Order: sequence, then structure tokens, then C-alpha cells
Amino acid sequence: MTEVIRIQEGVLADNDRAAEDLRLRFRESGTCVVNLMSGPGAGKTTLLERTAEALQGRLRLGVAVGDIQTSRDADRIARHGVPVVQINTGDACHLDARMVTPAADHLLPLGLDLLIVENVGNLVCPAEFEIGEDAKVVMLSVTEGADKPAKYPLMFHVSRLMLVSKVDLLPHVDFSMEAAIADARALNPDLQVIALSARTGEGLDPWIDWLLGLRDKARGR
Amino acid sequence: MTEVIRIQEGVLADNDRAAEDLRLRFRESGTCVVNLMSGPGAGKTTLLERTAEALQGRLRLGVAVGDIQTSRDADRIARHGVPVVQINTGDACHLDARMVTPAADHLLPLGLDLLIVENVGNLVCPAEFEIGEDAKVVMLSVTEGADKPAKYPLMFHVSRLMLVSKVDLLPHVDFSMEAAIADARALNPDLQVIALSARTGEGLDPWIDWLLGLRDKARGR
Repeated sequence: MTEVIRIQEGVLADNDRAAEDLRLRFRESGTCVVNLMSGPGAGKTTLLERTAEALQGRLRLGVAVGDIQTSRDADRIARHGVPVVQINTGDACHLDARMVTPAADHLLPLGLDLLIVENVGNLVCPAEFEIGEDAKVVMLSVTEGADKPAKYPLMFHVSRLMLVSKVDLLPHVDFSMEAAIADARALNPDLQVIALSARTGEGLDPWIDWLLGLRDKARGR
Repeated sequence: MTEVIRIQEGVLADNDRAAEDLRLRFRESGTCVVNLMSGPGAGKTTLLERTAEALQGRLRLGVAVGDIQTSRDADRIARHGVPVVQINTGDACHLDARMVTPAADHLLPLGLDLLIVENVGNLVCPAEFEIGEDAKVVMLSVTEGADKPAKYPLMFHVSRLMLVSKVDLLPHVDFSMEAAIADARALNPDLQVIALSARTGEGLDPWIDWLLGLRDKARGR
């Protein structure tokens, strides 16, 4: 068991080096990078479709999408005229810096202002792996329940922003926004929160403003 | 990278041995074991609360609950008079046979007919680890979307039964039952399917019957 843990630490140290390389490349190319994470089906891809529409003509957006299999998410986003790279992880339950590198090779020469990396749908493992990003964002849908921050603490601890998604479904589910935010901020007092629905458009403006603000701050690096 | 893969294979082989030990112990004690898996918030704990109520007086049920942190799920289930062990995995994104062993030590002396192991909420990693179970069951909520079987293929390939949960929300979400079942059966032609809602009770009877049938088959081992 100790053996395994040592190997795992080695994997994370290797990843940190690859992530640092990516971070330098992102800075040099002036690209702000967001690592978007959630459990399966929280609505990452649908939000990215709406985000691509909202940012059209305002900044140059690119997307890298991690999935174990299929290119369904990339196909959906590409329809909105955004350059997209699908990363199939095979059996890996997360993206790491090495998997993101070929996507960066492909996308950075396009001169992007903002690159959003949609991670594999998993509230656990993606939180452990740096990918050279400016900010980690976790999305929690109201259908998943307000107990998730306490049950998946690392994810909420490392994220700068929590998106509470599918708020159009609030009348039909038992979800306490107050409890979810309180539990998440107990883990991470500085966590920002935006509640939204990609379906109704509620909360999309604050999300777009947040992205634009992050990009402006990244430019000042 | 090859190094890591070899270590991973070693981990899985070690786990298979521990799982085989568990399997023998489950047989000797006449306990049928179900490994219940899903993404975060699909409704495993709520279903187990309803299951505990429905099985009361019909068979001796025990539950082991895997979570990274908190004992919230175990506390919820224990209120229904069922013996429960909470397994906190620390940072592990799945249950393996070694983590289940102390729970078995605690629960098997109680003379259970059925032990349901609620795995960590994760559609990826739990599928790789045998825990000596009679059957793996995957739960997919209609709020997660019908594309999940194709995107998380191993989970649907290794499971005997797919529970499609939260069907009371079908009027409010875009979910094609036909597409989800077709994609899942493309990976696993023998996959059984039960659609249910722990909230309304729809589909609970077929689930209870399925459990009783599995237990009867396990008795004949």
C-alpha cells in the first residue's frame, strides 16, 4: 500500500512539472485557461454551447473536452463555430497535464483569448491534477443534492468558482442553496458562487462577466 | 507511463485476490451482495432508504456505504433500522475489496441475507474493482442525460442491471429512455433495466423483486 502511495506521489510530481510547462505556454500565448469540472451530466457541455454563443465576437474562445470515449461533446460545441479538441482518455478518470498538451499544441497557434477545458465528468479525481490553468471551476447541479460539497471536499476546496446549475429544476427537487453554499464555503471561504440555468439563460450574464474578468486579470500577468 | 500501468495492473491483481477472499466469505455466510454504483447524486442513498423499508420483515438487509468523507449517507440509512457501516475512503475515488473487508467483518456475523454496498459516487473508477459481489448495479438518473452509457462504457459493460432513476423528473428534462437503453445494450446486450423513482415509488416493486430473485439465485450456489 505504501508502494502504491509513493508511486501516486510520483505521478502527481511528474504532472506538476508538465502543468508548469503548460502554464508558461499559456502565459506566453496570452491565453487564459479555465478547468471546468463536475460530476457526470451536471451540464458542462450545454453551458459551453451557451458560452460560445455569448462570447461570439467578444473574444476568441477555444475548448478542449475530456471524455473516456466518444466525441459527442466536442461535436456539440463545434457546431457553435468554436475550435474544439476532443481528448479521449481511454480508461483515465481525469485529465492530466500530459493529456492536455496535444490539445494545447493544436489550439494555442490559433491565438485564443480563452481556453476552457471541460474535464471528465467526475467529482473526485480531476481535482488532483493541475493542468496549468488560471482557475478551476466546479459545477454542481441542483439535482445532485446539497450534500455534495461535504462529500467531495477536495473538489470544492481547490475551485475558485462554484456554478450551481439547472436552477430551472429547483421547484422539482429537494435542494437547499444555502446548505450547499455554507458547506462549500466551510471548505473554501473564498469560493465564489454563481447559480445558473443554461436552459433558461438565468445566471449566464454573471458567468460571462466572470470569464471576462478572469481574462482581463490574466492579461495583466 | 508504462511503469504506472504495470503498477496499476499489480493493484488490480492484488484486489482480485482480496475480492476472491470476500466472495468465499459471502458464500459461506449465505449473504447475497450487490455493488451499487452511480455518479454523484443519482439517488443511491434515497433508493436504499426506500429499499430498507420495503424489505423490512422479508429479509435481513445490511448496507455498507462508501464516501470520501462524512457519514451522512450511513446516518440516513441507519434511521430505517438497518445495520450500516460507513467506509470513508479518504482520497480514494472508489471502493476496493480491502476497504470492504472491515465492513464485512462487522456485518457478516449479523447473519444477513442481503448486503448492498453503496459505492463512491463516480461513474468511472468503481467499475474496475471487484469486491466479491454477486452483481454490479449501475444507477443513472434521467437528469444526467442519455449519453452517459456511451461516455462511461466500462460501468455499463460490467453491470448486470441499470436502474434509471428520478423518472418523476422526466417531464422537466431532455432524456430519451430509448437512446439510453440502446446505447447501454450496445455495450452489454444482457443488461437488465428498471426505471424508477424513489420519490413517487414508481418502479420500486420490480427493483425489490429483482433483489429477491438475486438472493434466491445466490442461495442456490
